[in-house]
Amino acid sequence: MNIPRSNYPRIVIIGGGFAGISLAKKLSKQEVQVVLLDKNNYHTFQPLLYQVSTGGLEPDSIAYPLRKVLIGYDNFYFRLAEVQEINKENKKLITSIGDLSYDYLVVATGSKTNYFGNKELERNAMAMKSIPQSLNLRSLILENFEQALLTDDYHERDALMNFVIVGGGPTGVELAGALAEIKKGILPKDYPDLDTRRAQINLIQSGDRLLNAMSEKASKKAEDFLEELGVQVWKNVRVTGYDGKTVTTKTDLTFESATFVWAAGVKGATIKGLDTEDLITGTRLIVNEFSQVVGCPEIFAIGDIACMADKDNPHGHPMMAQPAIQQGENLGENLIRLIGGKPLEAFVYKDKGSMATVGRNKAVCDLKRIKFQGVFAWFVWMFVHLFFLIGFRNRVVVFVNWVYNYVRFDREARLIIRPYNRDYSQFKD
Amino acid sequence: MNIPRSNYPRIVIIGGGFAGISLAKKLSKQEVQVVLLDKNNYHTFQPLLYQVSTGGLEPDSIAYPLRKVLIGYDNFYFRLAEVQEINKENKKLITSIGDLSYDYLVVATGSKTNYFGNKELERNAMAMKSIPQSLNLRSLILENFEQALLTDDYHERDALMNFVIVGGGPTGVELAGALAEIKKGILPKDYPDLDTRRAQINLIQSGDRLLNAMSEKASKKAEDFLEELGVQVWKNVRVTGYDGKTVTTKTDLTFESATFVWAAGVKGATIKGLDTEDLITGTRLIVNEFSQVVGCPEIFAIGDIACMADKDNPHGHPMMAQPAIQQGENLGENLIRLIGGKPLEAFVYKDKGSMATVGRNKAVCDLKRIKFQGVFAWFVWMFVHLFFLIGFRNRVVVFVNWVYNYVRFDREARLIIRPYNRDYSQFKD
Repeated sequence: MNIPRSNYPRIVIIGGGFAGISLAKKLSKQEVQVVLLDKNNYHTFQPLLYQVSTGGLEPDSIAYPLRKVLIGYDNFYFRLAEVQEINKENKKLITSIGDLSYDYLVVATGSKTNYFGNKELERNAMAMKSIPQSLNLRSLILENFEQALLTDDYHERDALMNFVIVGGGPTGVELAGALAEIKKGILPKDYPDLDTRRAQINLIQSGDRLLNAMSEKASKKAEDFLEELGVQVWKNVRVTGYDGKTVTTKTDLTFESATFVWAAGVKGATIKGLDTEDLITGTRLIVNEFSQVVGCPEIFAIGDIACMADKDNPHGHPMMAQPAIQQGENLGENLIRLIGGKPLEAFVYKDKGSMATVGRNKAVCDLKRIKFQGVFAWFVWMFVHLFFLIGFRNRVVVFVNWVYNYVRFDREARLIIRPYNRDYSQFKD
Repeated sequence: MNIPRSNYPRIVIIGGGFAGISLAKKLSKQEVQVVLLDKNNYHTFQPLLYQVSTGGLEPDSIAYPLRKVLIGYDNFYFRLAEVQEINKENKKLITSIGDLSYDYLVVATGSKTNYFGNKELERNAMAMKSIPQSLNLRSLILENFEQALLTDDYHERDALMNFVIVGGGPTGVELAGALAEIKKGILPKDYPDLDTRRAQINLIQSGDRLLNAMSEKASKKAEDFLEELGVQVWKNVRVTGYDGKTVTTKTDLTFESATFVWAAGVKGATIKGLDTEDLITGTRLIVNEFSQVVGCPEIFAIGDIACMADKDNPHGHPMMAQPAIQQGENLGENLIRLIGGKPLEAFVYKDKGSMATVGRNKAVCDLKRIKFQGVFAWFVWMFVHLFFLIGFRNRVVVFVNWVYNYVRFDREARLIIRPYNRDYSQFKD
């Protein structure tokens, strides 16, 4: 890879997610060379992917060109590349566009969908971890409604309008809520010749409550909100398979569905070349309090891929935006200290709380001192998401869309722009 | 196709472009059943496609869901379908989703790219007639810049940054201008490690002036604007082929280019089943002053596909939005008259003029009484395009983007979201 060496140490960051970007920004204007590698040329604001899938937002408004992250900083290089292997001995990376040596390496590759080894699920389920996947899901949902108009077989029609979402975390809850609102507000107007009352939204959770990383009160209220919207919530149900038509579970319960979304787990997006002993349950890299990968003083990991245990989080921090952003910032400062020969400062996670939105005026917030639900929580949710969204233009466009959607009870980003294709393996993350 | 018959006559419209939509709107709340068929579920505002290709606008903001066109009108049906054949004898259509009978049929299928029989061009050129094509072109442009960073071979690097656009009509002129602005304003900031001064934009016109449907003054000024922006304009050059690497012409002149866009011609998108004698030079349907296809009193054609000769337009009206919109409106009123047994009114084209934009503060306008160029023309161009754009949300989002792009000299909708694939035949129109 033809990136010239400068007099400064080279820090290579793999991945332009929350962690990678917040680190890169900290390194701006420092005496280091920053190389950012990503397989996409854009940052994805993952918390709003479900709004792309459901036509509430256009994909461009939740993405940001990675080349613009450190604009104006001469010693910054972005390359569109897939990293294939880390060669620790020679301190270099093997990538789809050639080799690259590093002085310090930061693995910020994030996470990918975890099917827990179930190949059938992996083959047939829709996931929602990337923009192409979200657009595929959007197209599938819309095409299934178009298809439902064409059949006289009412079993088939029901299956085309039957949504099954597995996973009761924020993604599943938010997607189920958004689909319920589409059923209520958009389908009757747009499909007057379809009996959209028969559309069903099923949310399946293997445990005994939704949003199990949040408070009991938030879980309860989220479930109430979903039921108000007409979502069927199934708790203590474990899905075992989906052949493209029928969802099977551990019991006799089955679902006939043409739209099956798997949001029931993530795992670290590992890279070849790091010892498997460094991986906890095979999916996340164990790091110390300085984000250092054990035994590799010049390799760091931050964000979803990193598992840093502390007393409140013995199995690592939650795999979400806040730990990633904070670890990126901490590591940025530590790398400058390290290069300057100063002692490092241990990472301390500031839990700012968590939140999830179910629908219009319906959200749940667990902040440090206060937990609240409903309209105010919903406004807080929107404000926080606008705040963390990257790019001024994106914020304005998302804001305009939200105001429009709120006032008009509508979602207009409803293009089927990708021919739905059973072989969408190329869009798997 | 299971569309119930009502007591009212059924009017089937093929195509949801400017013509089809303006007709449908006229038929709203009348005593007719309206069935709109399109192969996409959205209307495309074609005049702004070049801004999607160049990252200035997101695709969703220039598209509008066709289901929403006659929202609230009970006797309106939209179906996502490709029409394969017209069976005139039995007054029915054969489509990808089954047969459909009609009382009145309106062909509003628009136009498609005309390669004039050159298979090599058709195979290797990028076109820009649809949203998927525009996204493909956007991805290709961005990927070629990423690729240019990776090569040490400077011939290859130059080819990756060499743009060849064939066709000096509004599409070619607007695309060339937008690329020149990207070269000037965005590349140096975003690709500091690439010598973007070597990027070249070539606009090739077979005739002796650009915008040959406009006034001499507009042509001259557009060419001046393009040269100011650094576009190389080639007049009287006829392109003969492109093998994916080299553009050949009738003379010795060749270009090495990885981005070759064909905007040099359109032809009517005809459908099987209409007599070929009804076609003028094989591409447009000959209609009388009531938009009736000759010899078929219940079949009409409007927009690009229709060729209605009048004294000012012996070869039919220009293939652009205004004639399509006006023909749709006229036909809407005539169909009501026809059903009511009243005499029809001949179509009279009101030429509102034409315009093209070259870049920031640079446009040319030919109105009926006045022709002007420059900053004011540019504002008029923007106002007119916002006005004709369909959907309130779209207008706001486009406006926000334009203000942002103007103030920041930027274009942020720069995702590579479709893996570029040599076999993009599925996206050909």
